[in-house]
Amino acid sequence: TAHKVAILTVSDTVASGAGPDRSGPAAVAVINSSSERLGGASVAATAVVPDDVEKIKDVIRRWSDVDKMDLILTLGGTGCTPRDVTPEATKLLIEKETPGLLFVMTQESLKVTPFAMLSRAAAGIRGSSLIINMPGNPNAASECMEALLPALKHALRQIKGDKREKHPRHV
Amino acid sequence: TAHKVAILTVSDTVASGAGPDRSGPAAVAVINSSSERLGGASVAATAVVPDDVEKIKDVIRRWSDVDKMDLILTLGGTGCTPRDVTPEATKLLIEKETPGLLFVMTQESLKVTPFAMLSRAAAGIRGSSLIINMPGNPNAASECMEALLPALKHALRQIKGDKREKHPRHV
Amino acid sequence: TAHKVAILTVSDTVASGAGPDRSGPAAVAVINSSSERLGGASVAATAVVPDDVEKIKDVIRRWSDVDKMDLILTLGGTGCTPRDVTPEATKLLIEKETPGLLFVMTQESLKVTPFAMLSRAAAGIRGSSLIINMPGNPNAASECMEALLPALKHALRQIKGDKREKHPRHV
Ligand code: NA
Repeated sequence: TAHKVAILTVSDTVASGAGPDRSGPAAVAVINSSSERLGGASVAATAVVPDDVEKIKDVIRRWSDVDKMDLILTLGGTGCTPRDVTPEATKLLIEKETPGLLFVMTQESLKVTPFAMLSRAAAGIRGSSLIINMPGNPNAASECMEALLPALKHALRQIKGDKREKHPRHV
Repeated sequence: TAHKVAILTVSDTVASGAGPDRSGPAAVAVINSSSERLGGASVAATAVVPDDVEKIKDVIRRWSDVDKMDLILTLGGTGCTPRDVTPEATKLLIEKETPGLLFVMTQESLKVTPFAMLSRAAAGIRGSSLIINMPGNPNAASECMEALLPALKHALRQIKGDKREKHPRHV
Repeated sequence: TAHKVAILTVSDTVASGAGPDRSGPAAVAVINSSSERLGGASVAATAVVPDDVEKIKDVIRRWSDVDKMDLILTLGGTGCTPRDVTPEATKLLIEKETPGLLFVMTQESLKVTPFAMLSRAAAGIRGSSLIINMPGNPNAASECMEALLPALKHALRQIKGDKREKHPRHV
């Protein structure tokens, strides 16, 4: 059974129609090309919201609680400008933090650019959904996904309760 | 005066009697063989609890508040399965977080296996006790301990209030 | 327009007059010598407080809410002794965490000394102020500042709402 992935573009510019959504389609392409490494994955929903805590929360909550998405990726809103609130919205919904995923995203992104230190991304589990904040820039998001791929399939299976996925090296 | 160490195995399987506790005895052996590098340390208590927030909390709270353990290690329950709640229980008790310890555990564990990114371990201080979540796998726990040993003795002395242990490089 | 920097020495010893403030003047010198790389920066305020949560909070809150400092650096109180409470005071004031800054400070400090893992530093944004906990030791603080400099100018501009500073690699 494939994992259901949902992708949320967080951007005032895109939400208002003032600019195209470059992040969302790029992330869809990354998921499609990574499907096998993810143990089977397909994009089941996409959406665009402005940089607004309540609107971000509403979509993520619905995707997790109602639509039972396995993986929810947000794109953008993780920087340090006053409008960047994606991590704050995400942290209000997360039940169990996954700091190790943030560690590898940060570690690998810093190898590409020191500006990666400005990312304030959050990540964690809500119900049976893994929620991960990604940068809005398509290349940066792709690098973050690449950093996670060696263990992301196992994360998704663990969250679904598959005990066989308790890797012998890290119970 | 030696540091008192307490080791808590967190596992539904072990607690129910369905399997042996391999983690606990291995961690006891690591503490014993690291005693000198820890400035003197001996295991003063061990216990086994299921993956249950309240039961994990009860033991840790008693070991910290009543038994004044210097170092409390938990083993297991740090992954991403629905039953893994050791970090959540631990965070409810921690008064002062020690993120630097988590950094080195993650950094070093990732050199061994990418599955280390799935660890959601927490660590911090409660009263005069340092509490650290470790993986249940004996090898992984041993690697984490090895990563901490260069500074763990100083951490334990700082927590006891020994001002001489304020290392000149990091007040 | 230059960034206004405020530097808070947190130390019972210095606050009580029992010892000189070596940290504060060293940090002022670092800011002055880094001014260009910070996009223009000058130290607009300095203060000394004991290791007391309320006193630390009072100064930081005023510097952020009233004096609109762009960058607030604390020095000291980030270790594991019972008196070290600077991160706890800071976290009570932070509105948006900046974990990436902590990551690079920890990563780079660990290259100098394993005792860097004992630092419990916090960092984040309150209003238009970036607040960063630094070690009290002048050399360690200087190393942390050096680790941040490749992106700190951009962080300060982002916090002020300069959208041009949304770096193309990390929206
Ligand atoms: Na971290």
